Amino acid sequence: MTVPTPDLPSLPPRLLLGPGPSNVHPSVLAAMAQPLAGHLDPAFLALLDEVQANLRTLFGTQNAMTLPISATGSAGMEACLVNLLEPGDRIVVGVNGVFGGRMCDVAARAGAEVTRVDSEPGTILEPAAMAEAIARVKPKVVAFVHAETSTGVLQPVEAIAAAAREAGAFVVLDCVTSLGGLPVRLDDWGIDAAYSGTQKCLACPPGLSPVSFSDRALDAVRARSRPVQSWFLDVTLLAGYFGGERVYHHTAPISAILGLTQGLRLVIAEGLDARAARHRDAAASLYAGLAPLGFTPLVAEEHRLPPLSTMRLPDSVLGWNGGAGEAGLRRRLLDGHDIEVGGGLGPLAGKVWRVGLMGENARKENVDRLVGALEQELGQG
Amino acid sequence: MTVPTPDLPSLPPRLLLGPGPSNVHPSVLAAMAQPLAGHLDPAFLALLDEVQANLRTLFGTQNAMTLPISATGSAGMEACLVNLLEPGDRIVVGVNGVFGGRMCDVAARAGAEVTRVDSEPGTILEPAAMAEAIARVKPKVVAFVHAETSTGVLQPVEAIAAAAREAGAFVVLDCVTSLGGLPVRLDDWGIDAAYSGTQKCLACPPGLSPVSFSDRALDAVRARSRPVQSWFLDVTLLAGYFGGERVYHHTAPISAILGLTQGLRLVIAEGLDARAARHRDAAASLYAGLAPLGFTPLVAEEHRLPPLSTMRLPDSVLGWNGGAGEAGLRRRLLDGHDIEVGGGLGPLAGKVWRVGLMGENARKENVDRLVGALEQELGQG
Repeated sequence: MTVPTPDLPSLPPRLLLGPGPSNVHPSVLAAMAQPLAGHLDPAFLALLDEVQANLRTLFGTQNAMTLPISATGSAGMEACLVNLLEPGDRIVVGVNGVFGGRMCDVAARAGAEVTRVDSEPGTILEPAAMAEAIARVKPKVVAFVHAETSTGVLQPVEAIAAAAREAGAFVVLDCVTSLGGLPVRLDDWGIDAAYSGTQKCLACPPGLSPVSFSDRALDAVRARSRPVQSWFLDVTLLAGYFGGERVYHHTAPISAILGLTQGLRLVIAEGLDARAARHRDAAASLYAGLAPLGFTPLVAEEHRLPPLSTMRLPDSVLGWNGGAGEAGLRRRLLDGHDIEVGGGLGPLAGKVWRVGLMGENARKENVDRLVGALEQELGQG
Repeated sequence: MTVPTPDLPSLPPRLLLGPGPSNVHPSVLAAMAQPLAGHLDPAFLALLDEVQANLRTLFGTQNAMTLPISATGSAGMEACLVNLLEPGDRIVVGVNGVFGGRMCDVAARAGAEVTRVDSEPGTILEPAAMAEAIARVKPKVVAFVHAETSTGVLQPVEAIAAAAREAGAFVVLDCVTSLGGLPVRLDDWGIDAAYSGTQKCLACPPGLSPVSFSDRALDAVRARSRPVQSWFLDVTLLAGYFGGERVYHHTAPISAILGLTQGLRLVIAEGLDARAARHRDAAASLYAGLAPLGFTPLVAEEHRLPPLSTMRLPDSVLGWNGGAGEAGLRRRLLDGHDIEVGGGLGPLAGKVWRVGLMGENARKENVDRLVGALEQELGQG
């Protein structure tokens, strides 16, 4: 007996200009719709080799243990931290937004002694303050965020990483909103563990977390006094599958990796420099387009994160449509214009919008569409 | 400047008769190829509501916290265990295959005192032995596997679950290879936490782990003396997004959930009873088709797991093509016939094959294709 095929689930055709996911290239969607092979099939393993090689290029590293974790970006953060930390280990975390704060939570749950170095949301971490804390605490791990998705700040990496390495610490870097949209150079910077997500500048769906561990980090994990708390995220076990031996650990998410394969081919075909320039140009268009409407960037010009712009809201938005306000206008953009933008997170909630121009979406025509919709809703067209 | 679209990655058209993934229904692939909306978009949240409701039907539960974890099945195992266990807690784990053994590893990494109750691979866990250990150890958690993918054993659940509940323990059940292919009745059985994967009887790609936590389990997690070791898997945080409030926790894997939405619609349209009968019928065809070639089932008839059959190998397979043996014949099936079957895991490696007839693949025509290929390779056609 044949069962009639139910109707496909459908979603409205949104332009995704929030903090992620961004819109996915049609050929990535087509790749994911290909029939599956097994996770130990030689044909699939060849694609996985390609994915790992291309991720090394994007991360700017030769690290053998560069791979897509089979879970979303937050799991990549957890993977980097729980592999390197044992109970009682000290960590210094730079916190200038929600994701730095999340690293503190993850590290504390792993039993680490956490020292926070806070900075005002919208500003960078001060390298001198980080260096002072590192010298004082002598931590095993120093962790901070390259591209703070909650504030739109691009953090200068080198001085902090150098201070950490000088103190003998391992350096963990959050590259969720930078990988594939901005230069990332793990080896030049001296980073030991980094993680990202696929749903931002890589223009793939959420669901995978590219990570990279230096050989030095991997050696340290192998020398731990107790096993990594997470079996699923233990990089010494992941190395059995993602290294040369291809030993079964867990079942890799085949379809998502087909999509990532194609997403990375698109990045490589465009070229990293051209792609970074496209992200910068799109962000410049956004600032120019929103300025006449009264939006102003939260972040000082030299520290802005091109893929994600955090904009202070004018009174016309804060008081939009009587009491509806900024949340009401975001809902109106979604319902009436099929455009998603992000609200503020944490202390910035209600005060800013986060506008993502990531991956495929980093193009002036998307800025024009957003500005046009806002002009219409704010009566300034 | 437009970048030319690179060629799509491609995989050979395999018939996936191993231990998973199984072949995915074309409409599930089509659902995953739909453009994305955001993870907080009302249109997406409506699909998530549908997924959660349908998972409750499949799990046989009214548990509010029934949801797809954003990672593969092994992460679902870890989620169930690390939420319920604190360092020093006692757990009794039934081990009659690789996945019971993995539960011991995961629990030990969470700091639990693990008591194993072992049973020969290919046999069920003896309820009396489990009950004895439960009475002796007085554990906080009792965990075992409903459908052992490494051996093809279907475990009777009720007596062990009853003994555990009587002792005041929480019961964790691995339903990776049963959900959607066999009756699962968490509420009737008194299960507190269960997990599955999407790539077996649900006929979706790997990448998500459906889990369910009873209210009683959730209350216990909320009453823990220390936070759950994993931020990513903390069910009290997941409840913020997968419960009514839809608070951001991590970015849900939109495309995978589109696929699961369609996969569950297909299961519901077919009906759970009809689907279970189809899996049983396909397995019966397999035993009948392989018997003339000398394959014999490892598992006693009353304990066989219809979606996954573990077959002892005849001499014609063990000695196939000189030294190539069973691994060589599996490779020949893949390269020459595009058919994947699974080898043995752990102590059964080299001794058995694991043949999956799961989800869409649980059909006699797939058995016929496998038998035909084997007849040809073994010269018995």
